[in-house]
Amino acid sequence: MSKVTIAEIQDILDAELPLANLLGCTFEEIGEGYCTVRMAFKPDLIRPGGTIAGPATMALADLALYGVVLSLVGRVELAVTTSLTVNFLRKPGQEDMIAKGSILKRGKRLVVAEVELYSAGDRESMVAHVTGTYSVPPEAG
Amino acid sequence: MSKVTIAEIQDILDAELPLANLLGCTFEEIGEGYCTVRMAFKPDLIRPGGTIAGPATMALADLALYGVVLSLVGRVELAVTTSLTVNFLRKPGQEDMIAKGSILKRGKRLVVAEVELYSAGDRESMVAHVTGTYSVPPEAG
Amino acid sequence: MSKVTIAEIQDILDAELPLANLLGCTFEEIGEGYCTVRMAFKPDLIRPGGTIAGPATMALADLALYGVVLSLVGRVELAVTTSLTVNFLRKPGQEDMIAKGSILKRGKRLVVAEVELYSAGDRESMVAHVTGTYSVPPEAG
Amino acid sequence: MSKVTIAEIQDILDAELPLANLLGCTFEEIGEGYCTVRMAFKPDLIRPGGTIAGPATMALADLALYGVVLSLVGRVELAVTTSLTVNFLRKPGQEDMIAKGSILKRGKRLVVAEVELYSAGDRESMVAHVTGTYSVPPEAG
Repeated sequence: MSKVTIAEIQDILDAELPLANLLGCTFEEIGEGYCTVRMAFKPDLIRPGGTIAGPATMALADLALYGVVLSLVGRVELAVTTSLTVNFLRKPGQEDMIAKGSILKRGKRLVVAEVELYSAGDRESMVAHVTGTYSVPPEAG
Repeated sequence: MSKVTIAEIQDILDAELPLANLLGCTFEEIGEGYCTVRMAFKPDLIRPGGTIAGPATMALADLALYGVVLSLVGRVELAVTTSLTVNFLRKPGQEDMIAKGSILKRGKRLVVAEVELYSAGDRESMVAHVTGTYSVPPEAG
Repeated sequence: MSKVTIAEIQDILDAELPLANLLGCTFEEIGEGYCTVRMAFKPDLIRPGGTIAGPATMALADLALYGVVLSLVGRVELAVTTSLTVNFLRKPGQEDMIAKGSILKRGKRLVVAEVELYSAGDRESMVAHVTGTYSVPPEAG
Repeated sequence: MSKVTIAEIQDILDAELPLANLLGCTFEEIGEGYCTVRMAFKPDLIRPGGTIAGPATMALADLALYGVVLSLVGRVELAVTTSLTVNFLRKPGQEDMIAKGSILKRGKRLVVAEVELYSAGDRESMVAHVTGTYSVPPEAG
């Protein structure tokens, strides 16, 4: 079972991560070691060429990593990303984007997770793939 | 010499990359294969713990990569990030952040660059390090 | 269907990639966009602490990436790795290691794939995760 | 000052990291937070196309990361790579390869470093760039 609910995570975003709202990201699902986050399309997210900007995609992925971490260790302010690698695979269309995060390793101090990103209308063709590492305080979880 | 001026790059951002303005990023310097970009601090950029959110840092870095690419190939809409790796090193303070991008390799189809990120008030302690790859059309530049 | 057989790929390794034999790597399975490679354990592969050295793990993963690429584009000497990211998750035991490569994106010029690595005796706990990009000549495949 | 000497590090490699000798890697220089490692060219290192294989390059880079870590924390068996990203920039010639490692961040539990790799005969054109993270026991150093 996830150590935080969608409502609790949404409270954290509202209070302490203004970017999540600015970018229109909301949690759709969270369980122990996985979560799904949606970023609503809006014109502010585009880049030259008319697709969604890479930084918006990375922000969504980082939020999914954060969700995976919170699902495992509970609300921990000091959980921070230590590294993140993104591979951009296809140009996303002008529509909502979906990030599905899942755990790769739950260590005592490091949590490693991956995120698969899709356009909401095409769950078959991944638009980007992310792996990331979070550092968590030893006593957490 | 850079193939684009700061004014030209700023025009691109104004017209086609709303996120850059939303995040308060402006180019300070651009030359052949390098550039400096500043992100003005504002409360929208914070994350739990009170430091600047990782996605804002990554967005700034991606913009510096984009500047390095444009400096070499000129204005090319189809230049796109193919991969990016960030290592977060220190928690940035609540102040402007500076990204210094520089070329690692100018290939025919791939441009690889690195970005060093600092807090504006402390140019000695890197807060994050980024490497990224851009794909450019073969005829560009 | 894979564009190369296991026998053909083994011929390439024998003739042109001495490291693969030196490390004891052999292909077990190859299909269109995926493959399985095994690295036989031997004392030469260990590192301080008694587990298998990271570079041996990375070499095995790179070989699985190469297999995925060859399965899609056929025998192409000029296919080269452009970037690779590895996350080490658990210490592998002193036993054979298995790499399972699968395609993430087959572009005209770039192939992106991921590799999951396991100890042969425990296919449930991933010991490392790799994503990598190969550059292929435009005319290949 | 480095917490290990070249002789001490060479002893560790001889006793516990057979791959380093197998690949012909030797330390040339070590100081607090930096080191230089050389890999002697030999035919075993080549790959299709006649350049040095990516895994050999990565192994050399990982060794330079390890040197940077040992220079800071002393001999610690449990220092392990947690992640590593390599960008291959140019095809190295059939000659010795040089890796120059340097520290990016010395944290209590994580050490982040970068490595620049060159052909011995051309110190101007980087053939690969690596960033990597090592996990070190909290009490080390």
